[in-house]
Amino acid sequence: MHFAHDERTLELIEQLEAFMAERIVPAEPVFHQQLGELDDRWAWSQAPVLKELQAEARERGLWNLFLPQEHADSPGLTNLQYAPLAEITGRSGHLAPAVLNCAAPDTGNMEVLSLFGTPEQKERWLQPLLRGEIRSAFAMTEPDVASSDATNIATRIERDGDEYVLNGRKWWITGAMNPNAEILIVMGKTDPSASRHRQQSMILVPRDTPGLEVVRGMEVFGYDDHEHGGHAELRFTDLRVPASNLIGEEGHGFAIAQARLGPGRIHHCMRSIGVAEAAIDLMCQRATQRVAFGRPIAQQGVVREWIAESRVRIEQLRLLVLKTAWLMDTVGNRGAHTEIQAIKIATPQTVQWILDKAIQVHGAGGLSQDFPLAAAYAGIRTLRFADGPDEVHKNSLAKAEIARHTTEA
Amino acid sequence: MHFAHDERTLELIEQLEAFMAERIVPAEPVFHQQLGELDDRWAWSQAPVLKELQAEARERGLWNLFLPQEHADSPGLTNLQYAPLAEITGRSGHLAPAVLNCAAPDTGNMEVLSLFGTPEQKERWLQPLLRGEIRSAFAMTEPDVASSDATNIATRIERDGDEYVLNGRKWWITGAMNPNAEILIVMGKTDPSASRHRQQSMILVPRDTPGLEVVRGMEVFGYDDHEHGGHAELRFTDLRVPASNLIGEEGHGFAIAQARLGPGRIHHCMRSIGVAEAAIDLMCQRATQRVAFGRPIAQQGVVREWIAESRVRIEQLRLLVLKTAWLMDTVGNRGAHTEIQAIKIATPQTVQWILDKAIQVHGAGGLSQDFPLAAAYAGIRTLRFADGPDEVHKNSLAKAEIARHTTEA
Amino acid sequence: MHFAHDERTLELIEQLEAFMAERIVPAEPVFHQQLGELDDRWAWSQAPVLKELQAEARERGLWNLFLPQEHADSPGLTNLQYAPLAEITGRSGHLAPAVLNCAAPDTGNMEVLSLFGTPEQKERWLQPLLRGEIRSAFAMTEPDVASSDATNIATRIERDGDEYVLNGRKWWITGAMNPNAEILIVMGKTDPSASRHRQQSMILVPRDTPGLEVVRGMEVFGYDDHEHGGHAELRFTDLRVPASNLIGEEGHGFAIAQARLGPGRIHHCMRSIGVAEAAIDLMCQRATQRVAFGRPIAQQGVVREWIAESRVRIEQLRLLVLKTAWLMDTVGNRGAHTEIQAIKIATPQTVQWILDKAIQVHGAGGLSQDFPLAAAYAGIRTLRFADGPDEVHKNSLAKAEIARHTTEA
Amino acid sequence: MHFAHDERTLELIEQLEAFMAERIVPAEPVFHQQLGELDDRWAWSQAPVLKELQAEARERGLWNLFLPQEHADSPGLTNLQYAPLAEITGRSGHLAPAVLNCAAPDTGNMEVLSLFGTPEQKERWLQPLLRGEIRSAFAMTEPDVASSDATNIATRIERDGDEYVLNGRKWWITGAMNPNAEILIVMGKTDPSASRHRQQSMILVPRDTPGLEVVRGMEVFGYDDHEHGGHAELRFTDLRVPASNLIGEEGHGFAIAQARLGPGRIHHCMRSIGVAEAAIDLMCQRATQRVAFGRPIAQQGVVREWIAESRVRIEQLRLLVLKTAWLMDTVGNRGAHTEIQAIKIATPQTVQWILDKAIQVHGAGGLSQDFPLAAAYAGIRTLRFADGPDEVHKNSLAKAEIARHTTEA
Repeated sequence: MHFAHDERTLELIEQLEAFMAERIVPAEPVFHQQLGELDDRWAWSQAPVLKELQAEARERGLWNLFLPQEHADSPGLTNLQYAPLAEITGRSGHLAPAVLNCAAPDTGNMEVLSLFGTPEQKERWLQPLLRGEIRSAFAMTEPDVASSDATNIATRIERDGDEYVLNGRKWWITGAMNPNAEILIVMGKTDPSASRHRQQSMILVPRDTPGLEVVRGMEVFGYDDHEHGGHAELRFTDLRVPASNLIGEEGHGFAIAQARLGPGRIHHCMRSIGVAEAAIDLMCQRATQRVAFGRPIAQQGVVREWIAESRVRIEQLRLLVLKTAWLMDTVGNRGAHTEIQAIKIATPQTVQWILDKAIQVHGAGGLSQDFPLAAAYAGIRTLRFADGPDEVHKNSLAKAEIARHTTEA
Repeated sequence: MHFAHDERTLELIEQLEAFMAERIVPAEPVFHQQLGELDDRWAWSQAPVLKELQAEARERGLWNLFLPQEHADSPGLTNLQYAPLAEITGRSGHLAPAVLNCAAPDTGNMEVLSLFGTPEQKERWLQPLLRGEIRSAFAMTEPDVASSDATNIATRIERDGDEYVLNGRKWWITGAMNPNAEILIVMGKTDPSASRHRQQSMILVPRDTPGLEVVRGMEVFGYDDHEHGGHAELRFTDLRVPASNLIGEEGHGFAIAQARLGPGRIHHCMRSIGVAEAAIDLMCQRATQRVAFGRPIAQQGVVREWIAESRVRIEQLRLLVLKTAWLMDTVGNRGAHTEIQAIKIATPQTVQWILDKAIQVHGAGGLSQDFPLAAAYAGIRTLRFADGPDEVHKNSLAKAEIARHTTEA
Repeated sequence: MHFAHDERTLELIEQLEAFMAERIVPAEPVFHQQLGELDDRWAWSQAPVLKELQAEARERGLWNLFLPQEHADSPGLTNLQYAPLAEITGRSGHLAPAVLNCAAPDTGNMEVLSLFGTPEQKERWLQPLLRGEIRSAFAMTEPDVASSDATNIATRIERDGDEYVLNGRKWWITGAMNPNAEILIVMGKTDPSASRHRQQSMILVPRDTPGLEVVRGMEVFGYDDHEHGGHAELRFTDLRVPASNLIGEEGHGFAIAQARLGPGRIHHCMRSIGVAEAAIDLMCQRATQRVAFGRPIAQQGVVREWIAESRVRIEQLRLLVLKTAWLMDTVGNRGAHTEIQAIKIATPQTVQWILDKAIQVHGAGGLSQDFPLAAAYAGIRTLRFADGPDEVHKNSLAKAEIARHTTEA
Repeated sequence: MHFAHDERTLELIEQLEAFMAERIVPAEPVFHQQLGELDDRWAWSQAPVLKELQAEARERGLWNLFLPQEHADSPGLTNLQYAPLAEITGRSGHLAPAVLNCAAPDTGNMEVLSLFGTPEQKERWLQPLLRGEIRSAFAMTEPDVASSDATNIATRIERDGDEYVLNGRKWWITGAMNPNAEILIVMGKTDPSASRHRQQSMILVPRDTPGLEVVRGMEVFGYDDHEHGGHAELRFTDLRVPASNLIGEEGHGFAIAQARLGPGRIHHCMRSIGVAEAAIDLMCQRATQRVAFGRPIAQQGVVREWIAESRVRIEQLRLLVLKTAWLMDTVGNRGAHTEIQAIKIATPQTVQWILDKAIQVHGAGGLSQDFPLAAAYAGIRTLRFADGPDEVHKNSLAKAEIARHTTEA
């Protein structure tokens, strides 16, 4: 065992921290101001400062860091090498991941196309995504069913000659309110009579295809999250795409979704740890500056208890996330299944707890637009549902644990 | 001991529940639609349906129920009689308290004017408030200091001839974004050299007084709370009001604030219990309807655990709130000091816990605009800061507890 | 609603507190010394000081306070009147309940005999119990099955002519290590083919009946609880008792058990609140006396947080227990079913939390024989299993709650 | 970063697991039976089976594994190499650490003598300890003061010619009830007028020195822990030892204590993780075997929630302990200060939580002598006090965290 980062990672950390400090953090107010001046409030990726910074990121070699496979435009880092970089991008607002072309859901979509796309699909959609020219969305969750159970998915994808016809509803489709999200990967059922995990397929749906209706944006607490494309409710009505838009084969949807989930989850976890670190930093600053009843609140026992607990919890969590990354790199996503579940369970509850305390230290201001804490809380809170609620994952992890102990015995 | 409501309370409960079911609940979507059509998004009290329902509430005798002193326009209920009625109004959105003229911060302001106002002040401001014709705000919290420590308050109120001159900043002034909030009660310092609790005074400031600037609305988790007048940041610059606008005498500000706080807190607690009851109801409904992995989630152990815990916690909390109301009625607000602190501490943490679980049962939808849960969570979360953060109250309550044990011993 | 005790209760509180302070508390070290001198370590009820105090309790009219039915030897208090008295007895060690003849499991057994016994059974067993001359035990729990599910009970009670024959095993039979526990009420199956809740019967088994083997005493943590008769494991082998020893009729065992449980649970809850109050008292004392890093620990924020939380929680819990008592008095044990479940769930978790904090304030000494806290923790911890684990009760309470919401809807 | 054990560790794990399975676990009932047959219940180290197994451990090269410095009798493992081995010994009762000569407090005492002892001290005391021939104790904690604050220590060590004279009281001196604990390391004050951390010295006191009184054994939740020598209260009255018994120099006591604490804490943490793993194993077994209401309780959601949480928490905790071991190996105990504090805080709370759930799954039996869970709970609970209560460590860790953030900013 060896707990130090390798040299390449240390170099990249240094470069990224410099880029964050010099360019990205100072650009955040500019980004938000430019957002406010857009004609379409959802078209966040058109903010000029973002374009400039993206160009600079490519020049600095801080581009597509998330992609484990080497591409012309990416350094081909391992998950373990990417982990601390993702954490750094999580420390400040939504700008950094986008600047580095490492923002969800594009990252997962690029992964899917990279692994399962045809040469034509790659040329048409993956290349512009890798260059950061367009954005994308991933349409799986549905409003009428518990989507954590993939067999519940009701959207139909039916073959009709050279085309597939889609009918159904989706919601919480992150990024899809942005008109630049030119391509959607849609999960639906091609064969409801097949076995449980062979009924689903994934298909590419260009955003401008007739039959696709963007119904509304979903809100999280009171945020519409327009600064990263919102969360759309979509309706597909007799929508037609060429049969060549299918990703992989019919019935492969569930397997592709599984392949996509592992990296998606760990990226979220890495960034969330960055969110927690930023919260601890704010909490310490505030506790030192704020005086009540004659003493800085940093001298009060309860506040110190919170800070100590925060540090102790986040250190443990980070190590589990790093070990999971290492397992994904060495034994594969399937071999890291239990650990991926574990960090999916542990991360939001830990970070939510820390954010709640950081808010409390800030007083009512902590809930307001003056600090990033309440918005971060809202974002982290959604992770307790993403890819299925915590309870589904706990149930599954426990079943495996019980089986392990009772078979061994 | 006798745990049943008296007959009058039972009658009023029946009448109020009927009014809620027949008129108020059905009017809620109308209210929100009318809100959306207002020229000024903050002017919620101008929604026509509200005016209609207010008139009907007066006719039905369900008006100013909160006011313990008898007035022409109020039935003069005890706190204990009012408690279950306030709870009922908490079960649905923000409409009910306003319909009954029982909405904060007007209730506390009416209390203050009723107890400490001059005949002229009552005639000019209390009467229209009691008739529901205007609204009001209460300006105490300041951005630059920990306002839980009243001695921190920095806004100056200085005598200059027949006038007082105000300078300072306030924020989180609930309701003050509404142009109908015609009158503000402002807390400030008249004599910084006086003893700790004699430095402050309260003064009436009409909203249209030159020198009052409404800087912006504060947000809570992305909500601007325009449907009840938002939370304003205000700046007072050389603002002048007649000396007769002072409430009570110079140096009485702290005492008046204390008198105002007790009822204000218990009303919040009562309504919050209604919020929790509504959440339990939604949680049970949803758990029954939602099927995952072949069974309604109501059959899953963890969900039942949450529901059982919610019921057990809310029953205990309600009894403490009721006992506190009874104490306020029988030994006065001062005699109920410890209990008022206790419910101030217990209520938000209990209700927040229940809301978090109710949200979890609802899946991502629980965080969205489709259910009232996330907005309720945001509102309840602010109560952990209102009139000082939990920690201040716990500290104070513990000091008294320790003193009691060590003096007795 | 009225939250004051009635006059009779106030008088009894005063009398009992005086008796506790003057006689019982000073007798506790004497009792423990006499215990240490007994030939049979389990025969706690033979301690001379106990006999003396029992005689005095009868004279003072503080005898059999728990018994709601009036008897020659009891004042016939309501549950609500008894509640604060039971709490007082919980504040100090195991002596007080025994002095007042209000100790479990005798109380429940007296209740059963009083309600369901034949005149002969009452004469033979109830009278000496009411006079405190003998002790008793209640044998329901079995080692091989989850006894929370009464249909699991495996002990057989078979009719054979004028006798019943018992075979089976029991454990955790509190008090049964004491040779003075002359009579056992045993639950077993008379008809395994009957419907679920009609299979069981209860029967009286004198301790000296051949075929009864006292296998061993169960320990709780490292305590054998000899000071109140331990917790026996028993084996019944072809044990025979006259048919007239049956309590009620065949098949009534489950119903009698249910009737016994309500009062038994609430008595435990009342006394447990007394345990918590004593812990808060010790915690405050200790926090004031103990100095670390230059300040009494009572000035440290975390300790104050614990004390405040303890007070806030115990106030809520007590009110729910009192309301439950009132319901039992006014609508009967069956009508108070949900509340009895609620206090069964809430009490141990609340009191356990308080004890854990009180221990922490005491340092390692808090875990030792020098303070009553660790032993209290052990005792309270068992309540999370008594009459079925918390989870069974939460599950049942939640089912009822869900049904209520979905039927109403 | 690399999360795999090195080859040597993997080999030792395999050897130790074989030794545990073949010899130690089967010997546990024998050990306890032999304990019961000893004339002196405290003289646990005289159990014949222990002697046999110790000899075998030496032959197998599984001896003194804890000792980072190479000795004739130890393999000189790093902390990181030792960590998983210590965890394995924690999985079963108290026998394994003693068999391997890796039991506290001897380990820490051997460390102290090894690092700070004179050649004579090493010859006289370290050698027999390393050979497992005698046992020892470490006397620091005192009954009258908060010992977490070393300046509170009141025991005097005064120079008088060629001797030192000791006066004072100690308690919670683990192992010291065992007559084989032939040597005590005692912390006391040689110079109360020196600066805060230079007042203390450590000195060797043979157990049979006149003036040493073993007052009594302290109990933990009713356990006297005689199977590892109990926890003695000691009184020193004008006790005299040669001046050459001083360890290091006068005034070095605090520094030596600090040096001893790091390894001591991490060993406790490693073994505690083994305790938690054993509890998870028992919990899974029991949940599978126990049927209630028609289903194994392993199928109940709440039980699965507990099992999943246990796994997720213990994985995180173990990684932090391993990283701490690695830091101690690479940057030294001082460089690992924050992490040592962090695992000291995190370990007992995590393991206690898991044990509480494991107990709950076992029903009342979980609290009894039939399972190791309640005894384990008692042992782990003491760790929240060992070397100072959690609160002291949290406070200190938070201060450092706050300083780091506010200096950097």
